[in-house]
Amino acid sequence: MSLPKIVICGDIVWAHEELQEMLGSTTTIVNMDCQTRQDFLSNLSDSGKYSNVVGFYRHNSSADRIGIFDAELINALPPSCKWIAHNGAGYDQIDIAACKKRGIRVSNTPGAVDEGTATTALYLLLSSLRQFSIAERNLRSLKWKTGLIPAHDPSAMTLGILGMGGIGMHFATMANALPVKKILYYNRAPKKDAPAWAEYVSTMDELLERSDVLSVHCPLNEHTVGLVGEKQIRKLKKGSIIINTARGKVIDEAALIKALEDGHLYAAGLDVYPDEPNVNPRLMEFRNVTLLPHMGTETQESQRAMEVRALQNLKDYFQSGLGKDLVLEYRS
Amino acid sequence: MSLPKIVICGDIVWAHEELQEMLGSTTTIVNMDCQTRQDFLSNLSDSGKYSNVVGFYRHNSSADRIGIFDAELINALPPSCKWIAHNGAGYDQIDIAACKKRGIRVSNTPGAVDEGTATTALYLLLSSLRQFSIAERNLRSLKWKTGLIPAHDPSAMTLGILGMGGIGMHFATMANALPVKKILYYNRAPKKDAPAWAEYVSTMDELLERSDVLSVHCPLNEHTVGLVGEKQIRKLKKGSIIINTARGKVIDEAALIKALEDGHLYAAGLDVYPDEPNVNPRLMEFRNVTLLPHMGTETQESQRAMEVRALQNLKDYFQSGLGKDLVLEYRS
Repeated sequence: MSLPKIVICGDIVWAHEELQEMLGSTTTIVNMDCQTRQDFLSNLSDSGKYSNVVGFYRHNSSADRIGIFDAELINALPPSCKWIAHNGAGYDQIDIAACKKRGIRVSNTPGAVDEGTATTALYLLLSSLRQFSIAERNLRSLKWKTGLIPAHDPSAMTLGILGMGGIGMHFATMANALPVKKILYYNRAPKKDAPAWAEYVSTMDELLERSDVLSVHCPLNEHTVGLVGEKQIRKLKKGSIIINTARGKVIDEAALIKALEDGHLYAAGLDVYPDEPNVNPRLMEFRNVTLLPHMGTETQESQRAMEVRALQNLKDYFQSGLGKDLVLEYRS
Repeated sequence: MSLPKIVICGDIVWAHEELQEMLGSTTTIVNMDCQTRQDFLSNLSDSGKYSNVVGFYRHNSSADRIGIFDAELINALPPSCKWIAHNGAGYDQIDIAACKKRGIRVSNTPGAVDEGTATTALYLLLSSLRQFSIAERNLRSLKWKTGLIPAHDPSAMTLGILGMGGIGMHFATMANALPVKKILYYNRAPKKDAPAWAEYVSTMDELLERSDVLSVHCPLNEHTVGLVGEKQIRKLKKGSIIINTARGKVIDEAALIKALEDGHLYAAGLDVYPDEPNVNPRLMEFRNVTLLPHMGTETQESQRAMEVRALQNLKDYFQSGLGKDLVLEYRS
């Protein structure tokens, strides 16, 4: 009897040994080597390289060649396919509804990305609060402190966390040690293990009205596209700061730019954009905006941990029929 | 009987009301308005604007006009002068030995600068660890992530603190919450109130040999000029990071540059330089170096607190003959 087939779809950089150790003896490992979507789709059929695939390891890097896992791609997968082990916390490149219809389960890698992404949010918070990004541009253009205005200490700021999952909680813990004046968070429900210093607010409006800094930590899905729009941004106090390390489309970019233009916002710190790797050139023109090229999980330690965790989900599926990190939509 | 005279020597930006409240009814307040050192010195004599001065409020911004408080200036002060209340943690622009000979006491503003400076050190740590500064330059030159190599999470790093005063302790507390792997510190003696997670090492060599990141938090004085030199930098592991928010001259800049050139150091984050506001152009050529224009205390909250604390030292002197913040050289 032949071993079940798994297809490695996108980069494994750090965990090659772990791949062999964890799955080498129990599965047939096939690397997805197509350069086009058409080639990939045609190889899913009976005689193709990926026929009878049972599980995918998927990384967003595969989208450059074969596109995202949208309904068309999902519907082309053979009936053998049971599991997509996505490497990443955000799985907005996979059509979950289509997967559910086909009985294909999807896991992500929560936890493994918490430190990397929370550290990025902390950097953006400090840079936005203190004008450090513009200060460095000043120095490098030989202007020293010219035009810089003394900014604010963290201890003068109330921080509002939109989405208190693993990343939001890790970031809140870091911010609490700065310290900030106060930490509020809004979630669908209060977090069970939240520490006493993190105050739950039951509406997003209250979060917006009371925060000096809003940091976005919710996944991108049909409910969160444009969640932070014109109306929400205007509920923030004048002089507020927005940090986004989640997904660009959670914020209405036009509304964000307008609020930077008219000075409603003091600053913004962004790691994510609606149309990566393209960045709206208008964002680069504002003084007090810090812009990173989606660096959230760009550390050796985080990337290895994410790869191992995605592979662990595949291994668990083959051992038990279950993986620990089934995405939210499969839990109820 | 006329009120004792104080001279405000350099900027008061935020605490004008506090100045009047704290000292307006008990002293005669004179603003130093000279544009040259010669003019200042000549006004210290019997008929001058600053004759019979008892106390100075001093800010480094006065050096642009009248120079630093070196031996020449100190020796020209009238015998009436008893106190120099310096605004700042570092008082290397005042010749303390000359002051002591003349019986003039000097206070600084410890505590008030801790948050501002520690926040700056944290920013430099995150930027150096994660290559965020170069990542932003990448994005702004439309290169997105090209050439960036995944860096390191704080939790993989041992942090060595050189000088565990108020700033070092505040920074250590922030870093402990990231968390980092381990925090070591070297001081003349173990800190009495140090938390259990901060390990004292009794030699600077041990600090250097065990740290992945060295952060400098000691004052500049005759004992600390060039304290981090060629020999010390080479005791750090290959691939280490140096952060400096103290004073530029504590590090031998030529040795630092050499270690960046030959790759002994992975990165550096600098807020201070030996010859500010001039920055060695060679420093700007390294990829993974983050450079700030001495932003340590550039926050509204820190600057107000520093101004008030310096004024409080003058007020305390006039009330009791003592000020709380006598600098180290007067304590024994």
